Amino acid sequence: MRHTHTTTRRNVLRGTAAATAALTATGTIGAGTAHAGILQAESPAGGRGPSIGVLLYDGYSLLDPTGPAEVLSRLPDATVTMIAEERGPVRTDTGDVAVLAERSIAEIDHLDVLLVPGAGDRGTVGAMTNENLLKWIRRIHRHTRWTTSVCTGSIVLAAAGLLNGRRATTYWASAEYLQSTFDVTYLPQRYVHSGKIITAAGVSAGVDMALYLASLIADDDTAKAIQLAVEYDPQPPFGSGNAADADPQLKERALRLLAESQSLSRTGSVPAVP
Amino acid sequence: MRHTHTTTRRNVLRGTAAATAALTATGTIGAGTAHAGILQAESPAGGRGPSIGVLLYDGYSLLDPTGPAEVLSRLPDATVTMIAEERGPVRTDTGDVAVLAERSIAEIDHLDVLLVPGAGDRGTVGAMTNENLLKWIRRIHRHTRWTTSVCTGSIVLAAAGLLNGRRATTYWASAEYLQSTFDVTYLPQRYVHSGKIITAAGVSAGVDMALYLASLIADDDTAKAIQLAVEYDPQPPFGSGNAADADPQLKERALRLLAESQSLSRTGSVPAVP
Repeated sequence: MRHTHTTTRRNVLRGTAAATAALTATGTIGAGTAHAGILQAESPAGGRGPSIGVLLYDGYSLLDPTGPAEVLSRLPDATVTMIAEERGPVRTDTGDVAVLAERSIAEIDHLDVLLVPGAGDRGTVGAMTNENLLKWIRRIHRHTRWTTSVCTGSIVLAAAGLLNGRRATTYWASAEYLQSTFDVTYLPQRYVHSGKIITAAGVSAGVDMALYLASLIADDDTAKAIQLAVEYDPQPPFGSGNAADADPQLKERALRLLAESQSLSRTGSVPAVP
Repeated sequence: MRHTHTTTRRNVLRGTAAATAALTATGTIGAGTAHAGILQAESPAGGRGPSIGVLLYDGYSLLDPTGPAEVLSRLPDATVTMIAEERGPVRTDTGDVAVLAERSIAEIDHLDVLLVPGAGDRGTVGAMTNENLLKWIRRIHRHTRWTTSVCTGSIVLAAAGLLNGRRATTYWASAEYLQSTFDVTYLPQRYVHSGKIITAAGVSAGVDMALYLASLIADDDTAKAIQLAVEYDPQPPFGSGNAADADPQLKERALRLLAESQSLSRTGSVPAVP
């Protein structure tokens, strides 16, 4: 009984007239052969749609790049490329998980959209003091359509000099640091649009920002369809996600959980953070 | 001017008394040396906290595993392990992005929490017809504290026989398939808790489910602190994420965007989906 479904092979997605039409248009259904990447461009610069580059660096927070990547990858003909200083797996702040960087920064000369994720202290300090990375960010930014960040990624943009005189947002616990260290006015918003730069608040805010960005790159109807495609009808079981409403105990607990979940370093010395 | 911050090296996270206390307790601050993994268990089964295993398979949707992993990795002493049939990079449905599987299923005998993400048609059909994978899921499920899924991951659980006679949820466009193919009652909820199995709706619903799961594994206060830690105060720019409110045009557009963003296959023949 359990395996009758394997013989019927029906569409798992109901109402996939659209999906089937899209697939049939390529001539692959029926022929039974595969053409890798036939529905997408293979290279970040080679597609007809927007080239979206996500900069990974040691110690980023997993959802910062992956939430927006999920959303933006649904834009028509978009390519999403994970980029790092060197190709290869790049570990998150917890050290548990690694996303593969498919390209090194040396290989990427142009992006329509640059996204810089955030990280814990170790990762953020590492990125904001890495002149090689900052130089690349500045160079790419010159010709992007949109330069974006999630969480403390805005601190990396600020360290690259891109936020001078601008309004921006960042992770709630980093707002004071951002504002007192750089010539930036912090706004406690889910995302802040300033010229061609869009900064998002902490971690999960990247999803909201990416939907907004999708509406700018395509249009509102496309962004709404993407929201439905990823079934983004948020219903968190608690209402504790806004720092403005949080008491000091909750904030301290949140930061302690973050600190304790973060590995220090896999490779070398920890930057002194006195 | 731009680099004065590199000499002050202040905490990027304000109010990190908690963070500093946690770090100082390990004796690493001041000593200036690193101890990899000192704040976390190194192996999926070796920690004091919950061992959380996320099953990756070719064609999963990026946010399905990474959203919950971000949330659950903040549980005290938790380890999150990405697992696949074989170790190595596992590609998403778009083919653009790969997360590294750190362990093969042959290496994992026990998990406190198993999470099975969803995928597009190609990935879901691939997983639900992979008897090796289903056998492992059944074996691990026997001793989990919680067996969970996101999106069409519930169809994979159903194919493994774990949802017989149960209520569950899945991706909105797959509800009819789930209910008509298996002995499952579909509930159009953000997540459905049935015994030790918790299924989440599409893609982004995994974040809501993971916060609920965090409250079960730890307690409400911990889950609330995690929600603040990932600044999950959702404010999508549109309100189009609920399929029950969507008109047919929007649904068709959502499914077309999904289909067109998905690569067919990198390695072999496309399963026939008539």
